[in-house]
Amino acid sequence: MPQLLKVQNFTVSMDGVGAGEDQTLERPFGHVDPGQLMSWAFPTASWPGRRDSGGTRGLDDCMVRAFHHNIGAEIMGRNKFGPVRGPWEDDDWRGWWGDEPPFHTPVFVLTHYPRPSFSLSDTTFHFVDGEPADVLARAREAADGKDVRLGGGVSTIRQFLDADLVDTLHVAVSPVTYGSGLRLWDSPDELLDRFHRDVVPSPSGVTHHLYWRR
Amino acid sequence: MPQLLKVQNFTVSMDGVGAGEDQTLERPFGHVDPGQLMSWAFPTASWPGRRDSGGTRGLDDCMVRAFHHNIGAEIMGRNKFGPVRGPWEDDDWRGWWGDEPPFHTPVFVLTHYPRPSFSLSDTTFHFVDGEPADVLARAREAADGKDVRLGGGVSTIRQFLDADLVDTLHVAVSPVTYGSGLRLWDSPDELLDRFHRDVVPSPSGVTHHLYWRR
Repeated sequence: MPQLLKVQNFTVSMDGVGAGEDQTLERPFGHVDPGQLMSWAFPTASWPGRRDSGGTRGLDDCMVRAFHHNIGAEIMGRNKFGPVRGPWEDDDWRGWWGDEPPFHTPVFVLTHYPRPSFSLSDTTFHFVDGEPADVLARAREAADGKDVRLGGGVSTIRQFLDADLVDTLHVAVSPVTYGSGLRLWDSPDELLDRFHRDVVPSPSGVTHHLYWRR
Repeated sequence: MPQLLKVQNFTVSMDGVGAGEDQTLERPFGHVDPGQLMSWAFPTASWPGRRDSGGTRGLDDCMVRAFHHNIGAEIMGRNKFGPVRGPWEDDDWRGWWGDEPPFHTPVFVLTHYPRPSFSLSDTTFHFVDGEPADVLARAREAADGKDVRLGGGVSTIRQFLDADLVDTLHVAVSPVTYGSGLRLWDSPDELLDRFHRDVVPSPSGVTHHLYWRR
Protein backbone atom coordinates (compact mmCIF):
# COMPACT_ATOMS: atom_id res chain seq x y z
CA MET A 1 0.00 0.00 0.00
CA PRO A 2 1.18 3.57 -0.64
CA GLN A 3 2.58 5.70 2.18
CA LEU A 4 0.12 8.58 2.43
CA LEU A 5 0.84 12.15 3.52
CA LYS A 6 -2.04 13.05 5.84
CA VAL A 7 -3.30 16.15 7.61
CA GLN A 8 -5.22 15.08 10.73
CA ASN A 9 -7.31 16.95 13.29
CA PHE A 10 -6.18 20.31 11.94
CA THR A 11 -8.71 22.86 13.15
CA VAL A 12 -9.63 26.21 11.61
CA SER A 13 -12.32 28.81 12.23
CA MET A 14 -15.36 29.39 10.01
CA ASP A 15 -13.25 31.97 8.17
CA GLY A 16 -10.36 29.54 7.67
CA VAL A 17 -8.00 30.83 10.37
CA GLY A 18 -5.75 28.20 11.97
CA ALA A 19 -3.53 30.49 14.09
CA GLY A 20 -2.85 34.14 14.80
CA GLU A 21 0.01 36.02 13.17
CA ASP A 22 1.48 37.25 16.43
CA GLN A 23 2.88 34.03 17.94
CA THR A 24 4.86 34.41 21.17
CA LEU A 25 6.20 32.08 23.82
CA GLU A 26 3.20 32.90 25.98
CA ARG A 27 0.67 32.66 23.15
CA PRO A 28 1.62 29.88 20.70
CA PHE A 29 -1.45 30.62 18.56
CA GLY A 30 -1.18 34.42 18.79
CA HIS A 31 -4.55 36.14 19.21
CA VAL A 32 -6.29 32.84 18.45
CA ASP A 33 -7.26 30.89 21.58
CA PRO A 34 -6.40 27.22 20.93
CA GLY A 35 -8.62 26.22 23.84
CA GLN A 36 -11.57 27.70 21.95
CA LEU A 37 -10.53 26.47 18.51
CA MET A 38 -9.82 22.90 19.69
CA SER A 39 -12.63 22.70 22.26
CA TRP A 40 -14.40 20.01 20.18
CA ALA A 41 -11.53 17.57 20.90
CA PHE A 42 -11.04 18.00 24.65
CA PRO A 43 -14.17 16.11 25.84
CA THR A 44 -13.30 12.98 23.82
CA ALA A 45 -12.09 9.76 25.41
CA SER A 46 -9.04 9.70 23.12
CA TRP A 47 -7.76 13.23 23.75
CA PRO A 48 -4.04 12.74 24.54
CA GLY A 49 -4.25 14.97 27.60
CA ARG A 50 -6.94 12.85 29.24
CA ARG A 51 -5.89 11.20 32.51
CA ASP A 52 -9.12 9.37 33.36
CA SER A 53 -11.19 6.66 31.66
CA GLY A 54 -14.16 8.92 30.84
CA GLY A 55 -14.88 11.08 27.83
CA THR A 56 -17.18 10.90 24.81
CA ARG A 57 -16.89 8.06 22.28
CA GLY A 58 -18.89 9.46 19.37
CA LEU A 59 -17.86 10.98 16.05
CA ASP A 60 -15.36 13.49 17.45
CA ASP A 61 -13.65 10.70 19.35
CA CYS A 62 -13.32 8.62 16.15
CA MET A 63 -11.50 11.58 14.60
CA VAL A 64 -9.18 12.18 17.56
CA ARG A 65 -8.46 8.46 17.87
CA ALA A 66 -7.31 8.29 14.24
CA PHE A 67 -4.42 10.68 15.02
CA HIS A 68 -1.91 7.88 15.59
CA HIS A 69 -3.39 5.28 13.22
CA ASN A 70 -0.60 3.84 11.05
CA ILE A 71 1.50 7.03 11.37
CA GLY A 72 5.27 6.53 11.28
CA ALA A 73 6.56 10.12 11.12
CA GLU A 74 5.43 13.76 11.27
CA ILE A 75 6.49 16.82 9.31
CA MET A 76 5.90 20.19 11.00
CA GLY A 77 6.78 23.81 10.38
CA ARG A 78 9.22 25.64 12.58
CA ASN A 79 6.48 27.79 14.08
CA LYS A 80 4.60 24.72 15.25
CA PHE A 81 7.82 23.62 16.95
CA GLY A 82 8.41 26.91 18.74
CA PRO A 83 8.50 30.69 18.84
CA VAL A 84 12.24 31.08 18.11
CA ARG A 85 13.03 32.81 14.78
CA GLY A 86 16.28 32.99 12.80
CA PRO A 87 19.39 30.98 13.76
CA TRP A 88 19.17 28.78 16.87
CA GLU A 89 21.09 30.73 19.49
CA ASP A 90 21.29 27.63 21.65
CA ASP A 91 19.55 24.26 21.87
CA ASP A 92 17.50 25.09 24.96
CA TRP A 93 14.11 25.18 23.20
CA ARG A 94 12.79 21.62 22.93
CA GLY A 95 9.19 22.21 21.78
CA TRP A 96 5.95 23.10 23.55
CA TRP A 97 5.15 19.60 24.76
CA GLY A 98 7.34 18.89 27.79
CA ASP A 99 9.15 15.60 28.33
CA GLU A 100 6.46 13.42 26.67
CA PRO A 101 5.58 14.89 23.27
CA PRO A 102 2.39 13.37 21.81
CA PHE A 103 4.03 12.21 18.56
CA HIS A 104 5.92 9.00 19.49
CA THR A 105 7.65 8.93 16.07
CA PRO A 106 10.42 10.79 14.27
CA VAL A 107 9.39 14.43 13.67
CA PHE A 108 10.91 16.51 10.87
CA VAL A 109 10.97 20.24 11.67
CA LEU A 110 11.34 22.51 8.63
CA THR A 111 13.98 25.16 9.19
CA HIS A 112 16.69 26.90 7.20
CA TYR A 113 18.99 26.76 10.22
CA PRO A 114 20.84 23.57 11.13
CA ARG A 115 20.49 22.02 14.57
CA PRO A 116 21.38 18.58 15.95
CA SER A 117 18.60 16.00 16.31
CA PHE A 118 17.44 15.16 19.83
CA SER A 119 14.96 12.79 21.48
CA LEU A 120 12.35 13.30 24.17
CA SER A 121 10.87 9.98 25.30
CA ASP A 122 9.96 8.10 22.09
CA THR A 123 9.83 11.21 19.87
CA THR A 124 12.96 12.26 17.94
CA PHE A 125 13.12 15.74 16.39
CA HIS A 126 15.17 16.24 13.22
CA PHE A 127 15.79 19.71 11.74
CA VAL A 128 15.68 19.74 7.96
CA ASP A 129 16.00 22.24 5.12
CA GLY A 130 14.88 21.47 1.59
CA GLU A 131 12.06 21.26 -0.89
CA PRO A 132 8.82 19.68 0.36
CA ALA A 133 9.29 16.62 -1.88
CA ASP A 134 12.77 15.99 -0.44
CA VAL A 135 11.61 16.36 3.15
CA LEU A 136 8.69 14.03 2.45
CA ALA A 137 11.08 11.44 1.00
CA ARG A 138 13.14 11.55 4.21
CA ALA A 139 10.02 11.31 6.39
CA ARG A 140 8.69 8.35 4.38
CA GLU A 141 11.95 6.50 4.81
CA ALA A 142 11.86 7.14 8.57
CA ALA A 143 8.19 6.07 8.73
CA ASP A 144 9.18 2.51 7.85
CA GLY A 145 6.24 1.72 5.59
CA LYS A 146 3.66 3.67 7.58
CA ASP A 147 1.97 6.96 6.64
CA VAL A 148 3.36 10.44 7.33
CA ARG A 149 1.38 13.11 9.19
CA LEU A 150 1.64 16.70 8.03
CA GLY A 151 1.25 18.44 11.35
CA GLY A 152 0.98 22.10 10.33
CA GLY A 153 0.92 25.01 10.83
CA VAL A 154 -1.03 26.76 8.15
CA SER A 155 1.90 27.83 5.99
CA THR A 156 3.45 24.36 6.07
CA ILE A 157 0.20 22.74 4.93
CA ARG A 158 -0.17 25.38 2.17
CA GLN A 159 3.39 24.71 1.02
CA PHE A 160 2.77 20.94 0.68
CA LEU A 161 -0.64 21.50 -0.94
CA ASP A 162 0.95 23.84 -3.48
CA ALA A 163 3.48 21.09 -4.27
CA ASP A 164 0.53 18.65 -4.64
CA LEU A 165 2.02 16.24 -2.10
CA VAL A 166 -0.94 15.87 0.29
CA ASP A 167 -3.04 12.70 -0.04
CA THR A 168 -5.74 13.17 2.61
CA LEU A 169 -6.84 16.01 4.90
CA HIS A 170 -9.06 15.97 7.95
CA VAL A 171 -9.83 19.60 8.77
CA ALA A 172 -12.27 20.41 11.56
CA VAL A 173 -14.10 23.72 11.13
CA SER A 174 -14.98 25.22 14.51
CA PRO A 175 -18.01 27.46 14.96
CA VAL A 176 -15.92 30.58 15.67
CA THR A 177 -14.81 33.50 13.49
CA TYR A 178 -11.60 35.48 13.94
CA GLY A 179 -11.56 37.99 11.08
CA SER A 180 -7.77 37.97 10.86
CA GLY A 181 -4.91 35.51 11.22
CA LEU A 182 -3.16 32.79 9.22
CA ARG A 183 -5.70 31.32 6.83
CA LEU A 184 -5.64 27.76 5.53
CA TRP A 185 -8.20 28.73 2.88
CA ASP A 186 -10.79 31.32 1.94
CA SER A 187 -13.34 28.51 1.55
CA PRO A 188 -13.35 24.73 2.17
CA ASP A 189 -14.50 24.41 -1.47
CA GLU A 190 -11.13 25.59 -2.79
CA LEU A 191 -9.67 22.08 -2.73
CA LEU A 192 -12.48 20.42 -4.68
CA ASP A 193 -10.64 20.64 -7.99
CA ARG A 194 -8.12 18.12 -6.66
CA PHE A 195 -9.92 16.30 -3.86
CA HIS A 196 -13.12 14.41 -3.12
CA ARG A 197 -14.73 15.56 0.11
CA ASP A 198 -17.15 14.42 2.81
CA VAL A 199 -18.63 17.18 4.97
CA VAL A 200 -19.67 15.68 8.31
CA PRO A 201 -21.38 17.88 10.92
CA SER A 202 -20.78 16.71 14.46
CA PRO A 203 -23.34 17.05 17.26
CA SER A 204 -20.65 19.03 19.12
CA GLY A 205 -20.97 21.92 16.66
CA VAL A 206 -17.73 21.37 14.75
CA THR A 207 -17.90 20.22 11.11
CA HIS A 208 -15.39 17.64 9.95
CA HIS A 209 -14.12 17.98 6.39
CA LEU A 210 -12.52 14.84 4.99
CA TYR A 211 -10.63 15.19 1.70
CA TRP A 212 -8.97 12.56 -0.43
CA ARG A 213 -7.32 12.80 -3.85
CA ARG A 214 -9.38 12.55 -7.02
CA MET B 1 -7.34 2.22 30.56
CA PRO B 2 -10.36 -0.14 30.69
CA GLN B 3 -10.70 -2.97 28.17
CA LEU B 4 -13.88 -2.10 26.29
CA LEU B 5 -16.36 -4.50 24.68
CA LYS B 6 -17.16 -2.94 21.31
CA VAL B 7 -19.60 -3.59 18.47
CA GLN B 8 -18.06 -2.26 15.24
CA ASN B 9 -19.38 -1.87 11.69
CA PHE B 10 -22.47 -3.91 12.48
CA THR B 11 -25.03 -3.09 9.79
CA VAL B 12 -28.81 -3.29 9.97
CA SER B 13 -31.67 -2.21 7.73
CA MET B 14 -33.96 0.77 8.41
CA ASP B 15 -36.25 -1.70 10.18
CA GLY B 16 -33.43 -3.07 12.35
CA VAL B 17 -32.79 -6.34 10.51
CA GLY B 18 -29.20 -7.62 10.60
CA ALA B 19 -29.71 -11.03 8.96
CA GLY B 20 -32.40 -13.35 7.66
CA GLU B 21 -33.79 -16.21 9.72
CA ASP B 22 -33.15 -18.82 7.05
CA GLN B 23 -29.33 -19.09 7.06
CA THR B 24 -27.83 -21.79 4.81
CA LEU B 25 -24.36 -22.63 3.56
CA GLU B 26 -25.17 -20.90 0.28
CA ARG B 27 -26.85 -17.87 1.91
CA PRO B 28 -25.05 -16.94 5.16
CA PHE B 29 -27.47 -14.02 5.73
CA GLY B 30 -30.61 -15.93 4.65
CA HIS B 31 -32.99 -13.80 2.57
CA VAL B 32 -30.94 -10.70 3.44
CA ASP B 33 -28.35 -9.84 0.77
CA PRO B 34 -25.15 -8.87 2.64
CA GLY B 35 -23.86 -7.27 -0.57
CA GLN B 36 -26.77 -4.83 -0.36
CA LEU B 37 -26.68 -4.36 3.41
CA MET B 38 -22.91 -3.77 3.51
CA SER B 39 -22.63 -1.89 0.23
CA TRP B 40 -21.61 1.30 2.09
CA ALA B 41 -18.33 -0.36 3.16
CA PHE B 42 -17.12 -1.93 -0.09
CA PRO B 43 -16.00 1.29 -1.87
CA THR B 44 -13.79 2.36 1.05
CA ALA B 45 -10.01 2.27 0.91
CA SER B 46 -9.87 0.22 4.13
CA TRP B 47 -12.31 -2.55 3.16
CA PRO B 48 -10.42 -5.79 3.98
CA GLY B 49 -11.27 -7.31 0.59
CA ARG B 50 -9.64 -4.49 -1.34
CA ARG B 51 -6.64 -5.55 -3.43
CA ASP B 52 -5.72 -2.18 -4.97
CA SER B 53 -4.65 1.20 -3.56
CA GLY B 54 -7.86 3.03 -4.52
CA GLY B 55 -11.11 3.53 -2.62
CA THR B 56 -12.80 6.36 -0.78
CA ARG B 57 -11.20 7.97 2.29
CA GLY B 58 -14.14 9.85 3.79
CA LEU B 59 -16.40 9.14 6.75
CA ASP B 60 -17.28 5.56 5.81
CA ASP B 61 -13.60 4.76 5.47
CA CYS B 62 -12.90 6.16 8.97
CA MET B 63 -15.50 3.72 10.30
CA VAL B 64 -14.18 0.69 8.39
CA ARG B 65 -10.59 1.55 9.32
CA ALA B 66 -11.46 1.54 13.03
CA PHE B 67 -12.35 -2.18 12.83
CA HIS B 68 -8.91 -3.32 13.98
CA HIS B 69 -8.02 -0.36 16.19
CA ASN B 70 -6.73 -1.64 19.54
CA ILE B 71 -8.72 -4.89 19.24
CA GLY B 72 -7.16 -7.95 20.88
CA ALA B 73 -9.95 -10.55 20.58
CA GLU B 74 -13.40 -11.12 19.11
CA ILE B 75 -16.49 -12.84 20.47
CA MET B 76 -18.97 -14.17 17.91
CA GLY B 77 -22.07 -16.31 17.87
CA ARG B 78 -22.07 -19.75 16.35
CA ASN B 79 -24.23 -18.63 13.43
CA LYS B 80 -21.69 -15.99 12.47
CA PHE B 81 -19.08 -18.75 12.44
CA GLY B 82 -21.08 -21.11 10.24
CA PRO B 83 -24.34 -22.81 9.21
CA VAL B 84 -23.78 -26.06 11.18
CA ARG B 85 -26.30 -26.63 14.00
CA GLY B 86 -26.22 -29.07 16.92
CA PRO B 87 -23.12 -31.14 17.77
CA TRP B 88 -20.08 -30.79 15.50
CA GLU B 89 -20.19 -33.96 13.39
CA ASP B 90 -16.59 -33.36 12.32
CA ASP B 91 -14.11 -30.49 12.32
CA ASP B 92 -14.30 -29.82 8.58
CA TRP B 93 -16.12 -26.47 8.85
CA ARG B 94 -13.53 -23.76 9.50
CA GLY B 95 -15.58 -20.57 9.02
CA TRP B 96 -16.71 -18.55 6.01
CA TRP B 97 -13.44 -16.71 5.51
CA GLY B 98 -11.00 -19.08 3.84
CA ASP B 99 -7.36 -19.42 4.88
CA GLU B 100 -6.94 -15.74 5.86
CA PRO B 101 -9.79 -14.74 8.20
CA PRO B 102 -10.00 -10.95 8.68
CA PHE B 103 -9.71 -11.07 12.48
CA HIS B 104 -5.98 -11.60 13.18
CA THR B 105 -6.68 -12.23 16.90
CA PRO B 106 -8.13 -14.97 19.08
CA VAL B 107 -11.85 -15.45 18.30
CA PHE B 108 -14.25 -16.95 20.84
CA VAL B 109 -17.17 -18.78 19.20
CA LEU B 110 -20.19 -19.28 21.46
CA THR B 111 -21.48 -22.86 21.29
CA HIS B 112 -22.91 -25.45 23.65
CA TYR B 113 -20.91 -28.15 21.85
CA PRO B 114 -17.20 -28.63 22.54
CA ARG B 115 -14.67 -28.54 19.72
CA PRO B 116 -10.86 -28.21 19.71
CA SER B 117 -9.35 -24.80 19.01
CA PHE B 118 -7.63 -24.31 15.66
CA SER B 119 -5.70 -21.57 13.86
CA LEU B 120 -5.96 -20.18 10.35
CA SER B 121 -3.10 -17.79 9.61
CA ASP B 122 -2.97 -15.39 12.61
CA THR B 123 -6.56 -16.04 13.74
CA THR B 124 -7.23 -18.72 16.38
CA PHE B 125 -10.80 -19.92 16.94
CA HIS B 126 -11.79 -21.14 20.41
CA PHE B 127 -15.18 -22.77 21.10
CA VAL B 128 -16.69 -21.74 24.41
CA ASP B 129 -19.83 -22.36 26.41
CA GLY B 130 -20.85 -20.17 29.33
CA GLU B 131 -22.48 -17.01 30.54
CA PRO B 132 -21.64 -13.82 28.61
CA ALA B 133 -19.67 -12.40 31.56
CA ASP B 134 -17.50 -15.53 31.74
CA VAL B 135 -16.83 -15.57 28.01
CA LEU B 136 -15.97 -11.86 28.13
CA ALA B 137 -13.51 -12.49 30.97
CA ARG B 138 -11.74 -15.13 28.87
CA ALA B 139 -11.68 -12.87 25.81
CA ARG B 140 -10.29 -9.98 27.85
CA GLU B 141 -7.51 -12.14 29.16
CA ALA B 142 -6.66 -13.27 25.62
CA ALA B 143 -6.81 -9.67 24.36
CA ASP B 144 -3.74 -8.83 26.43
CA GLY B 145 -4.82 -5.36 27.52
CA LYS B 146 -6.57 -4.42 24.29
CA ASP B 147 -10.31 -4.08 23.65
CA VAL B 148 -12.65 -6.92 22.68
CA ARG B 149 -14.87 -6.80 19.59
CA LEU B 150 -18.37 -8.25 19.81
CA GLY B 151 -18.75 -9.47 16.25
CA GLY B 152 -22.41 -10.50 16.16
CA GLY B 153 -24.76 -11.77 14.93
CA VAL B 154 -27.91 -10.16 16.15
CA SER B 155 -28.77 -12.63 18.92
CA THR B 156 -25.23 -12.54 20.32
CA ILE B 157 -25.26 -8.73 20.51
CA ARG B 158 -28.71 -8.83 22.14
CA GLN B 159 -27.46 -11.37 24.69
CA PHE B 160 -24.51 -9.15 25.72
CA LEU B 161 -26.67 -6.02 25.72
CA ASP B 162 -29.17 -7.75 27.99
CA ALA B 163 -26.29 -8.60 30.36
CA ASP B 164 -25.22 -4.92 30.20
CA LEU B 165 -21.70 -5.82 29.11
CA VAL B 166 -21.38 -3.70 25.95
CA ASP B 167 -19.39 -0.45 26.26
CA THR B 168 -19.65 1.03 22.74
CA LEU B 169 -21.59 0.24 19.58
CA HIS B 170 -21.10 1.42 16.04
CA VAL B 171 -24.20 0.37 14.10
CA ALA B 172 -24.59 1.45 10.48
CA VAL B 173 -28.20 1.76 9.33
CA SER B 174 -28.49 1.05 5.60
CA PRO B 175 -31.24 2.65 3.48
CA VAL B 176 -33.02 -0.67 2.85
CA THR B 177 -36.04 -2.31 4.47
CA TYR B 178 -36.62 -6.07 4.78
CA GLY B 179 -39.87 -6.43 6.70
CA SER B 180 -38.76 -9.68 8.33
CA GLY B 181 -35.59 -11.22 9.72
CA LEU B 182 -33.44 -11.10 12.84
CA ARG B 183 -33.85 -7.68 14.40
CA LEU B 184 -31.24 -5.90 16.49
CA TRP B 185 -33.87 -3.42 17.62
CA ASP B 186 -37.28 -2.01 16.83
CA SER B 187 -35.78 1.48 16.93
CA PRO B 188 -32.26 2.92 17.33
CA ASP B 189 -33.71 4.97 20.21
CA GLU B 190 -34.19 1.88 22.37
CA LEU B 191 -30.66 2.07 23.77
CA LEU B 192 -30.82 5.72 24.86
CA ASP B 193 -31.69 4.83 28.44
CA ARG B 194 -28.20 3.36 28.87
CA PHE B 195 -26.12 5.00 26.14
CA HIS B 196 -25.19 8.39 24.75
CA ARG B 197 -25.46 8.50 20.97
CA ASP B 198 -24.20 10.41 17.94
CA VAL B 199 -26.25 9.99 14.76
CA VAL B 200 -24.00 10.70 11.77
CA PRO B 201 -25.45 10.61 8.25
CA SER B 202 -22.89 9.68 5.61
CA PRO B 203 -22.93 11.08 2.07
CA SER B 204 -23.10 7.42 0.94
CA GLY B 205 -26.66 7.11 2.26
CA VAL B 206 -25.90 5.00 5.33
CA THR B 207 -26.34 6.54 8.80
CA HIS B 208 -23.76 5.73 11.44
CA HIS B 209 -25.02 5.38 15.00
CA LEU B 210 -22.30 5.65 17.66
CA TYR B 211 -23.26 4.68 21.22
CA TRP B 212 -21.26 4.88 24.39
CA ARG B 213 -22.24 4.20 27.99
CA ARG B 214 -23.88 6.88 30.10
